[in-house]
This record gives sequence, structure tokens and C-alpha cells, in this order.
Amino acid sequence: MTTALKSYTFDGNFRMHRSGQLKSPTMVYETWGELNATKDNAILIFSGLSPSAHAASSEGDMSPGWWEDMIGSGLPIDTDKYFIISVNSLGSCFGSTGPASIDPETGERYRLTFPVLALEDVAEAAHLVVQHLGIECLHTVIGCSMGGMSGLAYCVRHPNAVNRFVSISSAARALPFSIAVRSLQREMIRSDVKWHKGNYDLGSPPITGQRLARKLGMITYRSAEEWTQRFGRERSTDHARIEDQFVAEFSVESYLENHANTFSGAFDPNCYLYLSHASDLFDLAEYGGSLAAGFKRLQLDQALVIGVRTDILFPIEQQRELADGISSACSDIRLAELDCIRGHDSFLVDMDAFRPVICEFFECCD
Amino acid sequence: MTTALKSYTFDGNFRMHRSGQLKSPTMVYETWGELNATKDNAILIFSGLSPSAHAASSEGDMSPGWWEDMIGSGLPIDTDKYFIISVNSLGSCFGSTGPASIDPETGERYRLTFPVLALEDVAEAAHLVVQHLGIECLHTVIGCSMGGMSGLAYCVRHPNAVNRFVSISSAARALPFSIAVRSLQREMIRSDVKWHKGNYDLGSPPITGQRLARKLGMITYRSAEEWTQRFGRERSTDHARIEDQFVAEFSVESYLENHANTFSGAFDPNCYLYLSHASDLFDLAEYGGSLAAGFKRLQLDQALVIGVRTDILFPIEQQRELADGISSACSDIRLAELDCIRGHDSFLVDMDAFRPVICEFFECCD
Repeated sequence: MTTALKSYTFDGNFRMHRSGQLKSPTMVYETWGELNATKDNAILIFSGLSPSAHAASSEGDMSPGWWEDMIGSGLPIDTDKYFIISVNSLGSCFGSTGPASIDPETGERYRLTFPVLALEDVAEAAHLVVQHLGIECLHTVIGCSMGGMSGLAYCVRHPNAVNRFVSISSAARALPFSIAVRSLQREMIRSDVKWHKGNYDLGSPPITGQRLARKLGMITYRSAEEWTQRFGRERSTDHARIEDQFVAEFSVESYLENHANTFSGAFDPNCYLYLSHASDLFDLAEYGGSLAAGFKRLQLDQALVIGVRTDILFPIEQQRELADGISSACSDIRLAELDCIRGHDSFLVDMDAFRPVICEFFECCD
Repeated sequence: MTTALKSYTFDGNFRMHRSGQLKSPTMVYETWGELNATKDNAILIFSGLSPSAHAASSEGDMSPGWWEDMIGSGLPIDTDKYFIISVNSLGSCFGSTGPASIDPETGERYRLTFPVLALEDVAEAAHLVVQHLGIECLHTVIGCSMGGMSGLAYCVRHPNAVNRFVSISSAARALPFSIAVRSLQREMIRSDVKWHKGNYDLGSPPITGQRLARKLGMITYRSAEEWTQRFGRERSTDHARIEDQFVAEFSVESYLENHANTFSGAFDPNCYLYLSHASDLFDLAEYGGSLAAGFKRLQLDQALVIGVRTDILFPIEQQRELADGISSACSDIRLAELDCIRGHDSFLVDMDAFRPVICEFFECCD
């Protein structure tokens, strides 16, 4: 654990949104910048499914964070002006309590005894950290991908505790296409003979299923256009021998292979299953019986919805739906439709497109 | 074997396009209608990856074929006017020689000793059947999906033996996105512990990998729009128990489950791997060094390219590229861009959209 990573353990039973509870869960988080005297300059960031709380480097952890080029002195999310908080999602495996954590009641890992996780739980766990930090009202909640839905849950459940919302490549609820993709990713892991219904040997996890799931992830996180430009039909290797015919032959296959190998060892499979499932479950329409009713519960001074036209997981129509819905409860709502070709992942890799939009949003807050 | 299914065994060594050869391969096929005296009314149909030669019912096999509503008396591909031939692809497992067939040299199944399959081999095997039937020049070659590429291979290799070409939801070569999807499908099968490097027990094939591959297939064969309209966030079952949380919960998940169960037992896994790989390999640019050079080798009187705007596997841009390329060698080329919402599979399920276009094409041939 780096000195940048802070920890807060809730003293009590944390009631889960669907059912069940966690005894004294721990949330880990990192912060950047200083909370001002009036405590009104705090920004809470919700990440996508896979990242840790380490969104940017700092003195306590010099390694680059997952949004390194977005958060810092003079950057769009400016650490000279704001106090920025990034909490590792409840259910994840990078310090916050999740299926890979020890259940204090049994002394064993939760694994599949962990209660059903909802993004409402991710939001409430972050809210506990915000309260612990003595912040009554957040300047802005920012959420990327799955984190956009967690952020929306935060805003709809605590309308008086947040002034602004930025949703990035997210949605008010998942489409059946996205559910189908995530369901198949989960099935890949569950089908691996090493999964053992969640009781896998930690020294020999279901890495094959994880690699397959990650590859399908990459296929949906990027765009066909990008790959056509980048790889075309370029070959990665020479395949003279017939035994090699099913080994990666095209560059795009090698690219997926390299990405899958990097990721698969780093994430706990059960945590992945829980967070993936939580992404399917979230539905703003649960707040009041319809999306329109859910949106009306928001109380925001300003909001920004950013989407990418090549995103197939959270397509541009969903960005329009989100902006349109938020407009019913917020007069200052902007929608930015970006032409990035890297699909859903653009917010992580196409900084030149995202920085100006986020920068402009915060400049208007001054 | 039904009485509709005919068989032709080539007496000799069939040289494969990439390398190797097959000793006396067998091709099975079905025909409908009558070959006229001048033998100029023959239509050859190339199917997608999965179907058998049984494209339509007939007296010899009353069961519905995969294109039942397209081929028949008074239908767009009119059996009153034309002699229609459908050959089971070389490499498939429905009668034509493929990896699941017995190698006459060893008395054992080929399995992975089968030579690398190219769509050129599928085309040449069909050409042998056409020659066997005494047909010098085909009225039309029609190819759907993978079959469109096999058909294009046929037309470019035998420019004097075909007058017209109809390409349906196909391409001049695969895009890296499609290669990535198919490569992942193959990896799902190869990763199944029951695959045993192709030497699976026939009584216990790698059904888990096949089911996963089929589900990914369905995700790319249909469209997100269709599923949004059809399923939305409808639930299929009640999931009260936590143990059930990863079981199909949304209707879209049950839909995929049902489709995967139907398909997976019916297709030989090795045959699937070979045909899938052949789809990646095909590239018209191999004929002359560029796509433009490849297209120029065609000699067609008429051609029709049909594509669907929601197809993500063979997207509409590829249909335009194909029509544009064919126009360099054929003055009577039409492009039909259809607004079907069922994606790549539309040619199998949205007959009302496809029938008029194909009907009009053949009426203009009269």
C-alpha cells in the first residue's frame, strides 16, 4: 500500500441495495489538491469497472494513474483549485471490500457469499468516504463508463449533496446489447474449469476465461474504424506450418493477445463478475418507475454529458437520452458528441479530444 | 442421406489453394428446377459458414431449407425458370469432405491433418460439381456472407464461366474487427479442455467452447437496435437467490442461451475452425496485388450487391466498396442498402426486405 492510498473502515453494518449487508466494509481512496475552508471545492470521481483508486500520480505514489493526463496542476481537473477524491469501487479488488476480501464473520474470503452488488452500493460506499472527509456538498461528481452510472446513482440518491455532474461514455441504464456482451464475458469465466464456482485456487485462477473475457472487452471497447485504420490486414507472423494455423496470424489478433495477457492476472475473477453484473442491473427508472421520473429527482446546477460516436457499448443515442433526460431537471446541461475513432475507450486514450471539453466545463464554474 | 442430396466424388488429387491436397474429395449438393437444353439457366448458391446444401425443400427432402422462402416456384430464385445448385462447402460437415471426414490415406478422420482451407478451395470444389453437371457457364453465382467471398473467388478465377454475380452481406475481404471476432470464437473452442487439440472424443465434444462461440456469433449477427426494440430490459426469470445471480436474468440472455443450445450440437468443431479461418484469409487483393486489380479481373454482365445498414460484421461501407470495385469491370452493377434492423442475419430472417431486390434482379435478366 502506497502512502497515497488512504483507507476508511465504516464502523457498522453496511446494508446492500438489493439484499444482505457487509460488516464494517473498508473503502480505499486517493485525494489530490486541498479541501478549501468552505469545503465546497471537492470533486468525486467514479471509475470504470477495472481501475483502482489511483487516477493520477502524487508524491505518495509517483506511478502514472489511469487518468494521469486529466488530473493535476493546470490540467482540466485542476489540483490547484479542487480537492479531488477517487474511491476504489466497493466490490473491486484494489483495497476496497469486495468478493476477494476476508469476511470478518467467517475469517474466509467472501467469494460468492458476497451479497449481490449494485452500483447503488458503489455510490453509497463512496458517499461514506465523502461524509468521513466532512464534505456536505460536492462541487462535482464525475463518472466514466460504469462510473457514470455509479455517479448517476449518487446524484439521484443525494440530490442535495452534489451540485454538478459529468457523465462520460455512460448511460441511464444498460442496453440489451451491452448486457449480452457482459453476460457472455461472465460466462467465459464461469465456464473455465478452474473457476470452481468461485472457489478457485488463488495460485491458479481461471485465467483462460479471463483472457477470453478481456479480448471480448477489447473488441467492444474500441471501434472497427480504428482497427481498419490501424491494422488493416497486416500480418503479425509468418504461418508456414499447418499446426500454426490457429495461432495469432493477423496483427489485430496479436494486439488482443498482448492486451489480454497484461490484464488477466491483475483482476480478481469474482470481483469482475460482481461489478460486471452490477453494470447490467443499474436502471435509473427504478427511481420513480420511469426514466423520466428518475431524471426529475436530480437537482443539479450544471451537467455535462460526453459521448463518442464510435462507442458501441454506450452508443451515442444513449448520450443523447442522458442529456435530454437531465435537461428536465437542470437548465445548464451540455452534450458533447466527440468524433474520436477509438470507441468506448476514447476517454482513456484520446486525451486531446476530452481535455478541452472538460476544461471548458470547469472554467465555466469559476 | 435424403434422396434430394446428390454426391460427386472427384477422381484424383484436389490441390488446395494454400498447400497440400485432398485425395478424391466428395462434394454433396442439391438441385432444384431443370437444366435447360442450352444449359444457360444454372444458378450456383454459396452459403454462409453454417448451413448444409439444403437451401430449400423438394420432393426428395420436404424439410424447410435455410433459404426456403427465397427458392421455389414463383419465388425470387424461381425453380420454374432456373436450375439451382447448392453445394455443401468443402471443409463443412454435412456431407462434403472436411476435417470430420475419413482420410482415405489413413482410414482415420482428418481432424487437424486437414490442409489449411481457403475459400478458393470452397469455390473450386463447387466448380468441379458444376463441370460434372456439364455446365460451361453459369447464369448467376449467388453468395451470402462467407459464401459471397467464395462466390467472388469463383467469379475472379473463372471469369468466362459466370455471367452474373449477386453478393449478399459479404465483402472483398474481412475487416480486422471481423477477424478479431472470429479469432476469439476459435479461441473459445480451442480453450475448451475437451477440444484436445482437435482430437476430441466425438461423444463429448468441446460443447462449452462451441456454445460461447455461438453466443458471440449471435451478438455480431444481429444488431443492438433489434435487441433494444425486442427485449429492452425485460427480465426472463425471477432471481431471488444469490446463487442464481449469474444465471440468465434478462430476456436477451435467455435468447442467446436458447440459440446456442440449438446450434452447438449440430456442427463439428474442427470444421467450424477451418471455415472460420478461411473467412479471415480470403482477400481479393491477392489477385493482381490490389483490390482494384482483383476487381478488374471480373467479367460480369450484371451484378448486384446487397447490404444491411445495421450489419456490424460486414458493414455497409464494405458493400459500397464491393459495388464500387465491381463497377470497374461491370457496367450493370446495382447496390441495395437495406434498412433492416436484424443486422447481418437479415438475409435469413427479413425475407420481405430481400425478396423484392432479388426478384427485380432476376426479372431484369429475362
